Amino acid sequence: MIMTLEWINAPLAGLNLTAKEQGLERQGQLTKPPGSLGSLETMAVRLCAMQGVQKPSVDKAQVVVFAGDHGIAAEGVSAFPQVVTAEMIKNFSRGGAAICALARQNNAAFEVVNLGTVVDLSAMDKIVDNTIMPGTSNFAQQAAMTMEQLSQAMASGKAAVDRAAGNGATLFIGGDMGIANTTAATALAAWATGQSVTALVGPGTGLDAQGVTHKSQVIEAALLKHKAAMSSPIEALRHVGGLEIAALTGAYIRAAQVGMAILVDGFITTSAAILATKMKPEITAWMFFSHASAEPGHKAMMASIGAETIVDLGMRLGEGSGAGVALSILKSACVTHNEMATFAEAQVSPSSV
Amino acid sequence: MIMTLEWINAPLAGLNLTAKEQGLERQGQLTKPPGSLGSLETMAVRLCAMQGVQKPSVDKAQVVVFAGDHGIAAEGVSAFPQVVTAEMIKNFSRGGAAICALARQNNAAFEVVNLGTVVDLSAMDKIVDNTIMPGTSNFAQQAAMTMEQLSQAMASGKAAVDRAAGNGATLFIGGDMGIANTTAATALAAWATGQSVTALVGPGTGLDAQGVTHKSQVIEAALLKHKAAMSSPIEALRHVGGLEIAALTGAYIRAAQVGMAILVDGFITTSAAILATKMKPEITAWMFFSHASAEPGHKAMMASIGAETIVDLGMRLGEGSGAGVALSILKSACVTHNEMATFAEAQVSPSSV
Repeated sequence: MIMTLEWINAPLAGLNLTAKEQGLERQGQLTKPPGSLGSLETMAVRLCAMQGVQKPSVDKAQVVVFAGDHGIAAEGVSAFPQVVTAEMIKNFSRGGAAICALARQNNAAFEVVNLGTVVDLSAMDKIVDNTIMPGTSNFAQQAAMTMEQLSQAMASGKAAVDRAAGNGATLFIGGDMGIANTTAATALAAWATGQSVTALVGPGTGLDAQGVTHKSQVIEAALLKHKAAMSSPIEALRHVGGLEIAALTGAYIRAAQVGMAILVDGFITTSAAILATKMKPEITAWMFFSHASAEPGHKAMMASIGAETIVDLGMRLGEGSGAGVALSILKSACVTHNEMATFAEAQVSPSSV
Repeated sequence: MIMTLEWINAPLAGLNLTAKEQGLERQGQLTKPPGSLGSLETMAVRLCAMQGVQKPSVDKAQVVVFAGDHGIAAEGVSAFPQVVTAEMIKNFSRGGAAICALARQNNAAFEVVNLGTVVDLSAMDKIVDNTIMPGTSNFAQQAAMTMEQLSQAMASGKAAVDRAAGNGATLFIGGDMGIANTTAATALAAWATGQSVTALVGPGTGLDAQGVTHKSQVIEAALLKHKAAMSSPIEALRHVGGLEIAALTGAYIRAAQVGMAILVDGFITTSAAILATKMKPEITAWMFFSHASAEPGHKAMMASIGAETIVDLGMRLGEGSGAGVALSILKSACVTHNEMATFAEAQVSPSSV
């Protein structure tokens, strides 16, 4: 099947400004000093606008971890062997990864989309097989993907969101798994933000200082090699991206097209989110950003889109794990907004000033 | 009944260092790069040490909101009328306050201890009547409490923890309700930290700049008036504290004596926590601090005890609401620690460096 990227041209859903006003009005009536719930209030009101209701909900959250291998791993840019991507897919299937525990904590639906690893995997529970290729090509030598492969990866993300929407999900969380994917994400971040690689690069799963320097050189050389060809967000993704990053970019765009709130995780997913903003600048209106990643480049990435994270817990695991933690806080925003009594209902006196 | 404060002299429980080591060992075996769950890891290991187990739990959390009125409200230091304390107790009873929604979200047990308001309240669901006096005396004119009243308030906090322990609670969350209580908390913080009142004072529920200046002058004058008499933490609490702040201080000390983990909320509760450290310096080993309050003085209070908060959401509501939000994150620390597979269990390859 030949995939096209035409679906990306469809417009994003619009926010419901009437629901936003009604949400704001409700916040002003709840039994608390105005503004005293801080960013919980703004999160709740944003969800009103996204969901078109006065009482929003993220109780039906869908977590999708996109997994795929990276040819760039051959350049020695990760502290873990490449086989770990497939091993972790098995761990996801059996419920033993961090994101599995966090999804269970939050009663979130959970699935993994396998876009292709160097190990051939058999069918497993909770794993959707969308294998495109056994990992990307090594982008130190050639483009990571062909246009057809990129299109398939982005369509896989779109399909995951469409499945989630069909199941009634009201919040989409994407996660990532792919040894060496901080290398791809850093290359994309450098392209998208204009920051230097040395300002963005970091240890990923645990490189030492020498390893980080080598990783930085690999990325710089690749960006130089592909510079002329990376003439658009799509070509940037195709040349130095990853299967899971392309799927995440596609998923975010689709979620905003169908009007589903998005909770972005950390470093890898933010690189996908930034690529999505390069295609659809207004997409950040549909996004919450979970956590400040300990991976050094994340701060500059967030600054480049003028967005703020919900928490900063020094996490750097990926898998959607930071979003799995921040989801509880979005839930807190909803329960306070939805369940608190108004001053009138509770017969509590308002401020005297 | 004449209350004494002798119980405070009992030693705090010791941390279980074997369980801490076992928790650390487990963290090192879980299927993730070492340290990649950031402060979730340190929170889980601290809980291991407090609870003496390798797999800790905060599923049985007890929230107790201590409520009481403040005579200092007569000086015009709050944006809300004093009757709101009693009105909010009714709102707590009916489940309409922010902390009620957050306790429900987290399946936490919830009760309110009424230490005395200017309005005489009838018996209500979820409200424990520990009335001592119809609000403290106005500490602009005299000490807020007698020693007997202070002892009763601290004993009320102790009793709440003993009830919680009897119900099998594994985490204690204290909340506060009392119009004008940021005035008392700021006075205590100035006494305990040595910082100036102007560096610590803030708008509370919503004073304007002129109101904050007036509040600051009221606090400074009171601290000057009672300076010689505030010769110990107990005397500081008695002179410029509040019934609910004294109860919180007592509750924290008791929790650490019986070995129950404590999740401190925000500005008011931190003032109680700091007073507790002045009596029991090692008590911070039993405490987690939920959130960075938007009330300006909170930062200096945290710095004075060298502690860090879990989240910063710009909240300033009190009631234990910040702890109600942070509780989900302590739960995330537990579920990842307890439920993740080890490298051996999942047959995932460890780091190659």
